Amino acid sequence: MKNFTDNKNRVTVRVPGTSANCGPGFDCLGVATTIYNYLDLTLIRANKVVVESSGEGADKIPRGKRNLTWLAIRRLLQEVGREDEFKGAIIRMKNNVPISRGLGSSSTAIVAGLTAANEILGSPLDKNGLLRLATELEGHPDNVAPAIFGGFTVSVMDNGAVQTFSFQPRIKLKLIVAVPDFELSTRLARKVLPKNVSMKDAIFNISRASMLIAALVEGREELLPLAFDDALHQPYRKKLVPGMSEVFEAAKSAGALGAAISGAGSCLIAFTSARARLEDKIAESMVEAFKLHGVNSKALILNVDKHGAQLIRNVELGIRN
Amino acid sequence: MKNFTDNKNRVTVRVPGTSANCGPGFDCLGVATTIYNYLDLTLIRANKVVVESSGEGADKIPRGKRNLTWLAIRRLLQEVGREDEFKGAIIRMKNNVPISRGLGSSSTAIVAGLTAANEILGSPLDKNGLLRLATELEGHPDNVAPAIFGGFTVSVMDNGAVQTFSFQPRIKLKLIVAVPDFELSTRLARKVLPKNVSMKDAIFNISRASMLIAALVEGREELLPLAFDDALHQPYRKKLVPGMSEVFEAAKSAGALGAAISGAGSCLIAFTSARARLEDKIAESMVEAFKLHGVNSKALILNVDKHGAQLIRNVELGIRN
Repeated sequence: MKNFTDNKNRVTVRVPGTSANCGPGFDCLGVATTIYNYLDLTLIRANKVVVESSGEGADKIPRGKRNLTWLAIRRLLQEVGREDEFKGAIIRMKNNVPISRGLGSSSTAIVAGLTAANEILGSPLDKNGLLRLATELEGHPDNVAPAIFGGFTVSVMDNGAVQTFSFQPRIKLKLIVAVPDFELSTRLARKVLPKNVSMKDAIFNISRASMLIAALVEGREELLPLAFDDALHQPYRKKLVPGMSEVFEAAKSAGALGAAISGAGSCLIAFTSARARLEDKIAESMVEAFKLHGVNSKALILNVDKHGAQLIRNVELGIRN
Repeated sequence: MKNFTDNKNRVTVRVPGTSANCGPGFDCLGVATTIYNYLDLTLIRANKVVVESSGEGADKIPRGKRNLTWLAIRRLLQEVGREDEFKGAIIRMKNNVPISRGLGSSSTAIVAGLTAANEILGSPLDKNGLLRLATELEGHPDNVAPAIFGGFTVSVMDNGAVQTFSFQPRIKLKLIVAVPDFELSTRLARKVLPKNVSMKDAIFNISRASMLIAALVEGREELLPLAFDDALHQPYRKKLVPGMSEVFEAAKSAGALGAAISGAGSCLIAFTSARARLEDKIAESMVEAFKLHGVNSKALILNVDKHGAQLIRNVELGIRN
């Protein structure tokens, strides 16, 4: 087994897939999950970028200098003034997070590049510094924040600056993700949203997002069943995910506390208390409901990731060196 | 000193004044404060309602059967099927909460009537039962919820039903309320609000309300300065409260964590950490800023009330028996 720390310019990190919005927390709430992408990064002096990838989306990930992980690494090198020292990288990825499904795969690519490069450079930035760059690269903090901090995150944008609060829920949750066999572009999922909404719908979400945070932080499971509902984005995105409402209903009928579109879709995510032991039943019911609408899907049963992006030592990724 | 408990159909309760919205939590967040209205209630068999009041708004409170406290009492009597037994009441009030200023004075009248009558009847309803009736009478839960439960409250309306979560913040706060010498009707303050708002403004409030709850529940003072801002109601109500923005700025310059319209106004409320000991300075700066806009005001320095409506024993209210 190769020890990846032999080379001081090489590290391996793992970054969690994430689910943004969680229903009412549109564009501010996110949660890190226990499905991971891995990056084995070597910074090199030569002006070249080598990208090797396996797993999810391996054939779609841009090689060379258009690679998103490289763009993140280059941004960090510029930020800390070391872009002349390291002009290239060897990027080896092993990806488990499905792409273009609303599980934050592009955020994992950005956060992995930033975290790994920062580590090699002696940690010139702290997590808030990484968050700032990641938000700039991704355009919003919804997925990069939980990918960096772990747990649930609340993010506020203030004149382009981002502030994030991350917390571990006091309820042990299981997250059931139904992954349909079609992709959904975030751009399209944004396009169907109205520019204006009713005050009533805005208040609907404010009250539920507030209740969701309070119930999670204080561990009040009995308050969750109302708290995952949304009036601002899901009603408009419904038409992009056949069977959405029925999958939500199926999950709730099987005992889920609530269900939501994961990020901009196409995945749907349900939440249940771990002690209820209903995750298998909920997963089955979601896949079944999707099927009734002609959508093939697979279910992932995940936990909340507590740590966010992490350095991995002595791990054999099983990818070519 | 008269012992009010001599008569088993007589009790005294105190109910806190409350501040709704707290900035971003429009129509869902509220906080109970340590300014109180008192009600000494006797339920009687005779078909008559006697109302005596002293203190704030004493000359404006309807006497007889149009009195709001009586309407609340009658609603409770009907709810528990005892309206034939008690056809009237002697209502003695001593009020400290300014009326029509956004400190929930009408909610105190409702909650006091419900709480006192419920106590005399042997507590047939619990606090959630009282909340249901109070919300029905007031039309929304924003003020009645903190008046009943104390602390901060998050309320969600779901098809007419209300669910409230109350919590004590893990930061010891001082609340500075600037009370201007003019009243503002909630009806007018509602009328200036648009029916539709931009998605951007909705997200602005969702993220800040979420951050506010998280920061208060977890006691993270450093996250509060962004968390009291609002884009959904205050910008429209600004014209109804001369100098509003300047009073907010003055409070923040004097060290407040944030400032907001209290409910629908006309009071403005600032929040500061008790250990900062800045409340006097903030109060002075708010009154001064109001004055520069031709508004006379007085400042109240309050704490968060922890208990909500409470039975008071052996208390001399100093009103005629």
